[in-house]
Amino acid sequence: MKKNLFLLSLLLMNVSVFAQATWIWYPGDYEIWLGNQMQNRRTERTTFMPPFWKLDSHYNLMDFHKEFILSQPEELELFVEGRYNVKLDGKILMGYPKRITVPAGKHKINLKVFNQDHVPAVFVRGKTIQSDASWRVTFEDKEWIDETGKASDQSGTTWLQAGSWNFNDPLVPPSQFKLNTKEENPVTVDKQAKSFLLDFGKETFGFLKLKGLTGKGNVRIYYGESKEEALATETCETTDFLEINQSAKRDSVMELTKAFRYVNVQFDGSVAIDGVSMLYEFLPVTERGGFRCSDEEINKIYDVALYTLHLNTREFFIDGIKRDRWIWSGDASQSYLMNYYSFFDSPSVARTMLALRGKDPVTSHINTIMDYTFYWFISIYDYYQFTGDKAFIQQFYPRMKSLMDYCLTRRNKNGLLEGLSGDWVFIDWAEGLSKKGEVSFEQLLFARSLETMALCAGIVNHTEDASQYAQLAKEVKGKLFQYYWNSEKHALVHSRVDGVSTPHVTRYANMFAVFFDYLNSAQKQEVKQHVLLNNQVPKITTPYMRFYELEALCALGEQPYVTKEMKDYWGGMLKLGATSFWEEYNPDKKGAEHYAMYGREFGKSLCHAWGASPLYLLGKYYLGVKPTAPAYQTYLIEPNLGGLQWIEGKVPTPQGEVEVYCSAKEIKVTGAAGTGTLRFKSKKKPTSKQGEIRSTGAGLYEMTIEKGKSYRVSYSL
Amino acid sequence: MKKNLFLLSLLLMNVSVFAQATWIWYPGDYEIWLGNQMQNRRTERTTFMPPFWKLDSHYNLMDFHKEFILSQPEELELFVEGRYNVKLDGKILMGYPKRITVPAGKHKINLKVFNQDHVPAVFVRGKTIQSDASWRVTFEDKEWIDETGKASDQSGTTWLQAGSWNFNDPLVPPSQFKLNTKEENPVTVDKQAKSFLLDFGKETFGFLKLKGLTGKGNVRIYYGESKEEALATETCETTDFLEINQSAKRDSVMELTKAFRYVNVQFDGSVAIDGVSMLYEFLPVTERGGFRCSDEEINKIYDVALYTLHLNTREFFIDGIKRDRWIWSGDASQSYLMNYYSFFDSPSVARTMLALRGKDPVTSHINTIMDYTFYWFISIYDYYQFTGDKAFIQQFYPRMKSLMDYCLTRRNKNGLLEGLSGDWVFIDWAEGLSKKGEVSFEQLLFARSLETMALCAGIVNHTEDASQYAQLAKEVKGKLFQYYWNSEKHALVHSRVDGVSTPHVTRYANMFAVFFDYLNSAQKQEVKQHVLLNNQVPKITTPYMRFYELEALCALGEQPYVTKEMKDYWGGMLKLGATSFWEEYNPDKKGAEHYAMYGREFGKSLCHAWGASPLYLLGKYYLGVKPTAPAYQTYLIEPNLGGLQWIEGKVPTPQGEVEVYCSAKEIKVTGAAGTGTLRFKSKKKPTSKQGEIRSTGAGLYEMTIEKGKSYRVSYSL
Repeated sequence: MKKNLFLLSLLLMNVSVFAQATWIWYPGDYEIWLGNQMQNRRTERTTFMPPFWKLDSHYNLMDFHKEFILSQPEELELFVEGRYNVKLDGKILMGYPKRITVPAGKHKINLKVFNQDHVPAVFVRGKTIQSDASWRVTFEDKEWIDETGKASDQSGTTWLQAGSWNFNDPLVPPSQFKLNTKEENPVTVDKQAKSFLLDFGKETFGFLKLKGLTGKGNVRIYYGESKEEALATETCETTDFLEINQSAKRDSVMELTKAFRYVNVQFDGSVAIDGVSMLYEFLPVTERGGFRCSDEEINKIYDVALYTLHLNTREFFIDGIKRDRWIWSGDASQSYLMNYYSFFDSPSVARTMLALRGKDPVTSHINTIMDYTFYWFISIYDYYQFTGDKAFIQQFYPRMKSLMDYCLTRRNKNGLLEGLSGDWVFIDWAEGLSKKGEVSFEQLLFARSLETMALCAGIVNHTEDASQYAQLAKEVKGKLFQYYWNSEKHALVHSRVDGVSTPHVTRYANMFAVFFDYLNSAQKQEVKQHVLLNNQVPKITTPYMRFYELEALCALGEQPYVTKEMKDYWGGMLKLGATSFWEEYNPDKKGAEHYAMYGREFGKSLCHAWGASPLYLLGKYYLGVKPTAPAYQTYLIEPNLGGLQWIEGKVPTPQGEVEVYCSAKEIKVTGAAGTGTLRFKSKKKPTSKQGEIRSTGAGLYEMTIEKGKSYRVSYSL
Repeated sequence: MKKNLFLLSLLLMNVSVFAQATWIWYPGDYEIWLGNQMQNRRTERTTFMPPFWKLDSHYNLMDFHKEFILSQPEELELFVEGRYNVKLDGKILMGYPKRITVPAGKHKINLKVFNQDHVPAVFVRGKTIQSDASWRVTFEDKEWIDETGKASDQSGTTWLQAGSWNFNDPLVPPSQFKLNTKEENPVTVDKQAKSFLLDFGKETFGFLKLKGLTGKGNVRIYYGESKEEALATETCETTDFLEINQSAKRDSVMELTKAFRYVNVQFDGSVAIDGVSMLYEFLPVTERGGFRCSDEEINKIYDVALYTLHLNTREFFIDGIKRDRWIWSGDASQSYLMNYYSFFDSPSVARTMLALRGKDPVTSHINTIMDYTFYWFISIYDYYQFTGDKAFIQQFYPRMKSLMDYCLTRRNKNGLLEGLSGDWVFIDWAEGLSKKGEVSFEQLLFARSLETMALCAGIVNHTEDASQYAQLAKEVKGKLFQYYWNSEKHALVHSRVDGVSTPHVTRYANMFAVFFDYLNSAQKQEVKQHVLLNNQVPKITTPYMRFYELEALCALGEQPYVTKEMKDYWGGMLKLGATSFWEEYNPDKKGAEHYAMYGREFGKSLCHAWGASPLYLLGKYYLGVKPTAPAYQTYLIEPNLGGLQWIEGKVPTPQGEVEVYCSAKEIKVTGAAGTGTLRFKSKKKPTSKQGEIRSTGAGLYEMTIEKGKSYRVSYSL
């Protein structure tokens, strides 16, 4: 009776009591599983195109547990993906319980779940007990019993905190995850007797929907990111071919998503179609960042960049929406940075990093690419800095370490890395770029990765590891300057082959050395003049490496130059009608030449995440906001007009947005998160009613920005 | 036209043309997947009971390829488990082709398959091209393309030979595998108004079938390996509970297999059942070995042992059919040896070893048990010796090595192994057996495992590894005698704790040291007298360790003593009505006490593979047949009557059976495989018309036995 009353009161209680319960799993496993699902969805003209690297799987047998103290008995509802059993205080319960009552007192509940197809996951809901990240999980509980039935009391088991995301509905388990969709209509329709040519007005992504489809015959659908592609029925990259035989009208939604602006629908026989729309598919994220300025072209670039990033922010940060729809570490590492200045969607960063890393044993570089392994390391430290998610490093330090072990075993006799059999030394898509021997760019990323390892080892209190990695980083960095710095060239040279440094200079290592702060002031100026602003050094044509090139220039205070470059390069794509930014852009090409790549007429992706870098540059180097301690506990605001009359915008932090306005006369700032420092130059003595301005040198000033407070500074640029 | 004629002739051709085509996969992957299926089928009274160690998964993305030269064009049929694409000579074909034509000339075909749920597998059938173990497979092809579309021409990819078994029907893919079944009826039925009590006459295994089931109500089924268990509705180990509501009569087969001799079926409401039978489930194997002798009790023991082994020879060699139905390395290693003297079903051995090993990284001992890791190593060398399957060692040497690496990293400062956190030091089910400190038994198995590694490293031409492992083995073996041999005790002592050798003597290390030939002749005699034949040393009560105890005695020529022990111990179980041999037998217990274990009334398994050891002992030490080189290229026949008047039997080899008859006056032998050597003692000069008998010492004789030839020797024992 008492129990029933309790149950009744439980049912009558407000739903918010249950707000914390969420589906949980082994951390990283769902990310790997979902990554497999997504990366094996790529098709090209009906042909299946899976990745060429090893894909891992979730652990199929999982133990979840939680210890707790109850002041009164509690009814728990159990939802499980997989075959399972339940133990209360080590005693196994009969069958597959869906509801159990836990008595008052100290207790321990274990759920053990097997699932080969999907990730073992549980959702537990009670008045006070809910499944969440505080639960512990392991893939080997090692709980054997002796001949008397006594369980082993020792344990060699590593328990991690459970992984979770936002699956807060017990009836929608993780395996059923789908992105959101929204129906959208074409802006123009060219309808003929046996065809539709549709223009959705801008690059988009989703499921095409044929409305009121009926009759008997074939439907052939040709998708195009450009009109040329949609019309090129023999060479467009993606298609859908259907055989129809239905008497009643029915809406038909395509099975797989496609990227397109234009769609060419052709049909024959007695097939009739009332109209065509599409289900736009997207990850719901919040536009927390923002940027506006006095230049409308820059504002347009920002908007198109944001849209480009959003289209590529999906189950994971992907490279491009037409192809590959795989997760590439180099591409993703840029998306993370752009994301910190726009959506600040941390789960998307963590998901992507976990899917990329996969599991041990390591049998190749991430995506098979040496540089992409290093971006993975470097991104983790960025992630910690921006989000303060220490648990991520604590949980995955072993995976960081084993990946670094892989790199360390591949060093040559000089302690440097060169491409061994099976290693792709990528760097950039650039014709004739040498990958031979010990490339300086790879050593530089290697050194930075070792520094990241040292920092992360410190975070997890592995002091011995920390000092070893620091020492290794120092050695590699030392060799970088010993072997590659050429004082006649005023630059790091590209590579060493057979122990001899080549005289060839490329931009890659030099621009990274700037914003990694590996160069002294003199070297920075040398690199600026002799590499970055030197047209004799081979130009960069991908937005991918333009990201870093412009970041280096910004770090050197060359924002006005960068503004011009941005307008030329991204503005150049806009002038060609781009509604999202491209995988590659060469202003020298003409017309449909722009669409070709990989030896294919429409091989190029016209919506590539790495094309969205202005998001990052404008937030970090114009609004000038960046963390100087994890989770923005401390941060800097160093606005730079970059030749614009005024700029304003928002930069998200884990706790609210930092707001910045800047003109030549006035700076306005609202603080968020921890403690900010506004830093600026002024010709005259600046004034503010809201706080104290400190002079920090000739014409240099600083002001402390507190959380939630707004400040206005009068100054003179 | 030509093509159609070709196709027609292909279809008209005899099926035998296609005989070689078989489903293929990544070696070891199907075994792991099937192991997961089987080991997660265990239930106890409706509760799911999965293993407590890590289970691995198949690689979900697989590339299969084959290069070949065709004298004329050939049509290939493709069957695939998973989403796939096909490349011919590196060029990808459209869609999901089911039939392709390969032109004459030199060609390469690749199939790339993704499957998360099941093992990626392919079946390719043409006139000359068939999928088989000659195909190559990899989980990472690393075939990237550059910006011009050119594929990488270097490769860091390891290609292995495809795995296969006997899936020769394209329409029955590996994921659909089921063991065979055969309907069987109870020998007695006690039918009451609302119940059936059935006796199937002997221990059996399969799906219970309720015939002509109808009505509304509950059916409760209680299974028993003993009648007591079937009647103990509250404590029997396995049950099925059904709710019935059906108006028409229907046969109903239970979903999961059970082990039983007796079944107690109870029902209520309006439920009616016409009768009950069962579908006996089994792996079809051939009884290639055989044994008969002058003692009918021994013959009965042999028959019951063979049945016990067969019941436990399933998807894999399992421990027992009631529980755990998991794969245990220690149990399986005995089944392998018994199998070599009965079914000689090599695929079952390979499957079991692969499922046990799983994949890297190694995170615990096999089954969490230190000794079970070592049995795995030792079994591999046995497997090679009996079957000559060198490819197994070539393919899986890396997995041997990484498992040994795991062991090597767990050595203590003395270079020895003791149970660390998470290690189960099992040895045997024996009350009060100490597992503390450095147990001699574990060091002995460790030394033998290192010797196996040295041998296998040699087989795969890793000469450096081979010498390192040989050196390590020597060191561990040296310490074994230095630390544990106690000349006052005339034995190896049980353990060392805190650097001090204990004075306690157990049988384990001593009996293994005998048949590993680690002892000199004097030590062997000491161990025989002071350990093996000494009642003061704690007795062994499990058939598991009796296996090795009796093997040691046989190796010392004590067959007459072993005959007596066999009759006492196994004969003892038969006298208690056993129809299969038990997990444990203690003659001191009475009645239903025999059925209890693990603190549960019917916890003991009455059909345990390790109970079948007479199969091995009688084949190897009575018929006396054993290989002295891989695959019986050379072998020994050394018959031993063991106090019996006559023995006769067959021992399987990869090529036919060796047949042996022996009495005190006559030996008859038929050779198989390579070259045998018959070795025997005789008081008088032996004679044979079929071959030349060599004298090899005082009363010792040898004779060469050729393949397929029969020999008869007159002698005098």
